[in-house]
Amino acid sequence: MTTPDSRIRELIVTPIAFRDPPLLNSSGVHEPLALRLILQLVLEDGTVGLGESTGGDIRIERLGAAARAVVGMDVFDTTAVAAAIDSVLLPTVPSSHERGWTTSAVEVACLDAQGKLLGRSVSDLLGGAVRDAVPFAAYLFYKWAEHPALDGRPAVGDEWGEALDPAGIVEQARLMRQRYGFSSFKLKGGVFPPDEEIAAMRALAEAFPGQPLRLDPNTAWTVETSQYVARELDGCLEYLEDPTPTIPGMAEVAKTSPMPLATNMCVVAWEQLKPAVEQDAIQVLLTDHHYWGGLRRTRELAAVCEAFGIGLSMHSNSHLGISLAAMTHVAAAIPNLDTSCDTHYPWNFADDVIVPGVLELRDGAVEVPAGPGLGVELDHDALERLHRVYLDSGMKGRDDTGYMRRVHPEYEFKLPRW
Amino acid sequence: MTTPDSRIRELIVTPIAFRDPPLLNSSGVHEPLALRLILQLVLEDGTVGLGESTGGDIRIERLGAAARAVVGMDVFDTTAVAAAIDSVLLPTVPSSHERGWTTSAVEVACLDAQGKLLGRSVSDLLGGAVRDAVPFAAYLFYKWAEHPALDGRPAVGDEWGEALDPAGIVEQARLMRQRYGFSSFKLKGGVFPPDEEIAAMRALAEAFPGQPLRLDPNTAWTVETSQYVARELDGCLEYLEDPTPTIPGMAEVAKTSPMPLATNMCVVAWEQLKPAVEQDAIQVLLTDHHYWGGLRRTRELAAVCEAFGIGLSMHSNSHLGISLAAMTHVAAAIPNLDTSCDTHYPWNFADDVIVPGVLELRDGAVEVPAGPGLGVELDHDALERLHRVYLDSGMKGRDDTGYMRRVHPEYEFKLPRW
Repeated sequence: MTTPDSRIRELIVTPIAFRDPPLLNSSGVHEPLALRLILQLVLEDGTVGLGESTGGDIRIERLGAAARAVVGMDVFDTTAVAAAIDSVLLPTVPSSHERGWTTSAVEVACLDAQGKLLGRSVSDLLGGAVRDAVPFAAYLFYKWAEHPALDGRPAVGDEWGEALDPAGIVEQARLMRQRYGFSSFKLKGGVFPPDEEIAAMRALAEAFPGQPLRLDPNTAWTVETSQYVARELDGCLEYLEDPTPTIPGMAEVAKTSPMPLATNMCVVAWEQLKPAVEQDAIQVLLTDHHYWGGLRRTRELAAVCEAFGIGLSMHSNSHLGISLAAMTHVAAAIPNLDTSCDTHYPWNFADDVIVPGVLELRDGAVEVPAGPGLGVELDHDALERLHRVYLDSGMKGRDDTGYMRRVHPEYEFKLPRW
Repeated sequence: MTTPDSRIRELIVTPIAFRDPPLLNSSGVHEPLALRLILQLVLEDGTVGLGESTGGDIRIERLGAAARAVVGMDVFDTTAVAAAIDSVLLPTVPSSHERGWTTSAVEVACLDAQGKLLGRSVSDLLGGAVRDAVPFAAYLFYKWAEHPALDGRPAVGDEWGEALDPAGIVEQARLMRQRYGFSSFKLKGGVFPPDEEIAAMRALAEAFPGQPLRLDPNTAWTVETSQYVARELDGCLEYLEDPTPTIPGMAEVAKTSPMPLATNMCVVAWEQLKPAVEQDAIQVLLTDHHYWGGLRRTRELAAVCEAFGIGLSMHSNSHLGISLAAMTHVAAAIPNLDTSCDTHYPWNFADDVIVPGVLELRDGAVEVPAGPGLGVELDHDALERLHRVYLDSGMKGRDDTGYMRRVHPEYEFKLPRW
């Protein structure tokens, strides 16, 4: 049913940039600023639904096309809204995964608006929360002590300091645990030769006995190296995430891996589920509502995992509070999301665009916001400030490799590297 | 979030019996009365959500247990409501499919109540309707001209007359088409030797060229007979439904079948999806919200089918208008439900318990009800009348075979029969 009030009047997309520490990964290092887009979906009655997605010129352009496609549609018609966006993007964006980033961002804003219209939380619209708080894992990174001085800009340090060896990672984990109460830990690997990262995981296992540990080298390893690391870390990991590229590669590793393999890289679109199941390539899927089609589609994806005996966890990119609220609502609503979720929030929340106080990482978990919709409120001053930071930055997209090469010109992008 | 008003105060389950023609199937014949349960889920604020499910003492008892489990829960917590019911039934009902009948009935009533509370249709709560009307197939049955005289009760004829051969089936199809505008046809088979049913399908194909036809013998055939019928009907069927029992049996038939195989018998619970996919046993799944867990779970099931390239259609048992409204809302919301759905409604709607006028089969389709919730209203007088019919009947469950044996004592239940 369509009512005059619930039609979409406008979709406002505001690019922002926020501070990000020098976190290392298999393709380089996080730049001093990360880009993000904040969505305000305005209904005819003035209700505003919030959304958040990755930034960059390509994403802005696609969301602009989406905005034109959805004006006048009913905010409850999320399936039709997604189809309309998908159809507008199809001629120029062949990848369904890529189109998914755009449809997903709008879906979340629609659900936030629905919840605000109806006076119910987004988790209520997803079948209700089955847990009051959602557990997250500490997301550990190898990192430099500071962003180096470049372009006349001074070096910029942070409260976390350097972490370039096992001792540094354990210290970072201790800080994460002390500040936020995490009791599971994920290390972003693929940065140093595998034996160094094996040593880091063993040091974590010794420092935090019995607590779930994960290692994610972002496909930095060959099949053979992945099999070696898996053997070496037998008994140490809850799961090993994306050791090597492609579904067949993961399937080959899975044949001998003593621990489950997880992915948010080789299965990132609906059509990849069937081959992954047929090849028994993964035992855990890290879902991400930012590209799987939104929150309802994430629930549907969870049902696929349930039906096929695939474990479920949750992926994160650098994000702010609107995304964290959405992640928390959907994770709270999914019964079979039974591991802790990933989040970058501790690295980035200082530059958030929501009014503080709702989303607190306490005892390693975030309570499901109680208010209608996502339960978070936009801080318009913060939004305006971070939008200016974006404008001043001149950034057009994320480039971890380019940034690394400016600091270390000899750096070469290569996956798998070992 | 929980609000005082949206808590469940009471679940009223009213058994009813309604007239059913003597429709033949692979296990006997429909009795003169069919049983059904009407659910009224009453919230603390007085809002009432409607549901409908199959009848019989076992179902009444289980819904009674469910009613006790859900009082005090929030109507938006449908996932937790289902888990609570499942957990109460688990010790005595080992089959997840069987438990699904009970959880499903309550979920629909919850969604109807949610929609009424919020002023939105159930399809809106499922992501919005992607079609204004849902196409249904004419459900053709071999049938007697009348329920024979038994127990001092006179014979009872109906407006449809006899259909025991190809000419009778074609005539029934013509009537169905003339009255309701159907343009696809399904024959309930498994009643006569396969060659007679092959002849009936060929007669339908000649009478309605180009219109989708389906045959459903309810597992009356062996693998070999199924393969024979499939060969004989090459080019004639949209799909062949449940020719033979079990997933391995269907997989064997599928190897040589020229048309897709469909099921609502060998895949009726979530844990059966994986073996069905692994064995490539089915190409079309007939979903049924009455046992797959309700309307949201049906959407999730549709996503599984989408991911694994399984076609989607919809199953029906003898039902009334609350079920038809629920079937219509969920079918309208599912993009990949792209075949016409089954419905028994033309055989039964004369004894409906809803206020007439909303659900009309026109041009072979039912428009999605526009009102809040399911968009149908309970006719309390009709409910009371049919409840008395139930009480007077003394019936405790459905028994197609027993009824057949009272008329033809030599009848033996046997599946597969040919």
